[in-house]
Amino acid sequence: MIKVVKIGGNVVDNPELLKQFVKDFAAMPGMKVLVHGGGVMASQMQKAMGMTPVMIEGRRVTDEDTLKVVTMVYAGWCNKNITALLQDAGCNAIGLCGADCNVIKAQKRPPVHVESLGEDVDYGYVGDVKADSVNASFIYYLLEKGIVPVLCAINHDGEGNLLNTNADTIASSVAIAMSGYKYRTRRDVCCRCEECTHCSDDGRLTHETELIYCFEKNGVLYDKDDDDSVIAEIDKAKFEELKAEGRVADGMIPKLTNAFKAIDSGVARVVIKHAKNLGNNVGTTLI
Amino acid sequence: MIKVVKIGGNVVDNPELLKQFVKDFAAMPGMKVLVHGGGVMASQMQKAMGMTPVMIEGRRVTDEDTLKVVTMVYAGWCNKNITALLQDAGCNAIGLCGADCNVIKAQKRPPVHVESLGEDVDYGYVGDVKADSVNASFIYYLLEKGIVPVLCAINHDGEGNLLNTNADTIASSVAIAMSGYKYRTRRDVCCRCEECTHCSDDGRLTHETELIYCFEKNGVLYDKDDDDSVIAEIDKAKFEELKAEGRVADGMIPKLTNAFKAIDSGVARVVIKHAKNLGNNVGTTLI
Repeated sequence: MIKVVKIGGNVVDNPELLKQFVKDFAAMPGMKVLVHGGGVMASQMQKAMGMTPVMIEGRRVTDEDTLKVVTMVYAGWCNKNITALLQDAGCNAIGLCGADCNVIKAQKRPPVHVESLGEDVDYGYVGDVKADSVNASFIYYLLEKGIVPVLCAINHDGEGNLLNTNADTIASSVAIAMSGYKYRTRRDVCCRCEECTHCSDDGRLTHETELIYCFEKNGVLYDKDDDDSVIAEIDKAKFEELKAEGRVADGMIPKLTNAFKAIDSGVARVVIKHAKNLGNNVGTTLI
Repeated sequence: MIKVVKIGGNVVDNPELLKQFVKDFAAMPGMKVLVHGGGVMASQMQKAMGMTPVMIEGRRVTDEDTLKVVTMVYAGWCNKNITALLQDAGCNAIGLCGADCNVIKAQKRPPVHVESLGEDVDYGYVGDVKADSVNASFIYYLLEKGIVPVLCAINHDGEGNLLNTNADTIASSVAIAMSGYKYRTRRDVCCRCEECTHCSDDGRLTHETELIYCFEKNGVLYDKDDDDSVIAEIDKAKFEELKAEGRVADGMIPKLTNAFKAIDSGVARVVIKHAKNLGNNVGTTLI
């Protein structure tokens, strides 16, 4: 089992919550990857430097100066602070952006038509990431040595340019890529984990992967105003039902749609939970 | 032969010079490590954020806010920009700070007495690095795979705190550590490099290391106003002679003293040259 955990700005920018999260993440057994955002701090930095953050449909328009700021915040402070805290917690972390060992390549997004504005928008130095852009063999090479990759949302195009990408997409792309990565091993050591069910006789194996999105709620809620009304498990049929009932709406629909796409692409399950609950069983599991 | 190259802010902050340097560094054969500074950009960033950089005897006083800025600049923008450019040049670089895989641990500097001020100074989140703080086996593990570590001057104390360190010291500590690192290999592959003269019969080998400091002059000059008056080679006797003649003075004396310390500690030679000359033979070699 390889676990890919994604945390957003609400954890990264909250020292108390981050401290607890780091402790729980370090204690998680087995192979694991951490993906983090940091958008709140990036906006603060932009403002501190007299810049005005421009967001269109939740994505940051990234000109040259903005690219410098997000690279400094995500790949610099957030990534290295988390890595140092994990080292202190006994977890041998390595902080990476996509350019490091070419671990993730992104494609610069061409101008796209934005319905709400009725016009084309050039997002600038923004990149899109796909599962086949992930250097799964390098990630596996680290995991096998007990090293824990900590990935920020900065990637590169392979032509010397850094690109600002979406941390949720990185997490799902990495989980998909790792679920499809076939590794060779001696039969006597097999996968070295109990959960893996993909052992085959040709000596090529894959690990199951689990994608865990930590966000600011306890999970997908029956009643959005009741944080305790967590739905424990959702499959596709249940998702359609919840949509029809209007129980999930707005930002939750694309989140769940993308989660089911990850499952269709090979990820064993997706868990949505609060970062404070990483160490326990509260949350919504999508299967 | 393992080459450790150090570049300072004059290269990192100059896009044209950096482009040429990256091309020359990528073309350099064999095992290599890059160490970079970025102090000029850090001071610019501090000013852009309304902070006043405080330097005492050439070292930055690093309070909590300054630590964030230098981490963002060194480990964020500078490190990842260089790494992306190296990837484009066909060099499989990985950008690291000391916290990543615990590659370099630093010790927080206690308050020190500064003669010129006549008082004790607390430099804040500033760390000192020694050769035995370098995780030589991890660096060697990367080098053996053809991966090129790109190290910035941010390190950690192993207790969750990042520390601002000196890039020159990191470069010499890494060169010393790698010169003493004993690796095992099969006799038939030996060191896989022509220059290495340390093969022994017990199957444990060391590589020679060369430390290359790139700075803003062509080398150590006979006449500080004549950039062409480069002294090709200096040994300890020659160094004493040059000091007595007043040919080397000010900042050059500690630079050369530290270089000879590295040689005394196992580094085969130290080269001091302009970054634009990395690809050719101009410069001063200390033996």
